[in-house]
Amino acid sequence: MASAVTNLDLHDIARAARTYGVQSFHVITPLDDQRELAEKIVRHWTRGSGGEHNPKRREALELIRLTSSLDETRAIIQEESGLPPAIVATCARRYPNATKFVELAERLKAGKPHLVIFGTAWGLSQDLIEASDAILEPIGDHRGYNHLSVRCAAAIVMDRLMTFRL
Amino acid sequence: MASAVTNLDLHDIARAARTYGVQSFHVITPLDDQRELAEKIVRHWTRGSGGEHNPKRREALELIRLTSSLDETRAIIQEESGLPPAIVATCARRYPNATKFVELAERLKAGKPHLVIFGTAWGLSQDLIEASDAILEPIGDHRGYNHLSVRCAAAIVMDRLMTFRL
Repeated sequence: MASAVTNLDLHDIARAARTYGVQSFHVITPLDDQRELAEKIVRHWTRGSGGEHNPKRREALELIRLTSSLDETRAIIQEESGLPPAIVATCARRYPNATKFVELAERLKAGKPHLVIFGTAWGLSQDLIEASDAILEPIGDHRGYNHLSVRCAAAIVMDRLMTFRL
Repeated sequence: MASAVTNLDLHDIARAARTYGVQSFHVITPLDDQRELAEKIVRHWTRGSGGEHNPKRREALELIRLTSSLDETRAIIQEESGLPPAIVATCARRYPNATKFVELAERLKAGKPHLVIFGTAWGLSQDLIEASDAILEPIGDHRGYNHLSVRCAAAIVMDRLMTFRL
């Protein structure tokens, strides 16, 4: 199942990625028209008039890489960093053996590249979750309600992993 | 300076508020047309067809209270909880004597109502910041970049204050 790429997801997640010093933000969609739309938005803010008027936004959107598959993203990261990334799935449900935030924060400090993946709309597919190297524990099951937007969930996950407060 | 109320700010912040067990989410704008627009959105999701199709969204948007001033919001909280709230301003800049997240998390546990305020667009006015009872420390000054969307900033602040991980 493929869902739509939204303008605000691109902006919000790129801004959070830049804030927390994340290396790159990969937007993966098999849909050509969605990728073209995202390309147009990224171009406007990185090489067009958007970036001239708002250099802070350019700095954020420059982190975006657009691909059509997880394999393509994995290859880009391997090329850029010299190592294949460990794939970490995120999910609102709790899996047995889920990796704790504090554990993943420790692993990130060691320097090996990690790709933390988020799904929009219905979340990640079951195949993707099972094929990942690790599944991150859910943000929480506060009072049984766990329906954050992907933008807010990604920002919270970056905050927990990158500020080393744990 | 008054800025626009956006549909996604309402949804994202209400969903995060519901997730973290926040009592109510007050949207304050002096602009009648903005308040009417927000009212329409909230009505659609709490009493209209939106809420019927998506009860989880209704649960979140039911937390929204719309007012035209901080005084009005303060009066509503005092009426609902029996005590006037302590007003906590948020700001991307660091103030001397800013309250640390861990300190505010401790104060919240004591049960007195607190109103944590966020500004959209250009942030909160200087008057509002100076009139508040406390100013929360900024989320961070990671590598000099601090340009989170208000949606993501509010979600991160709730996560830091309400999960008691500090």
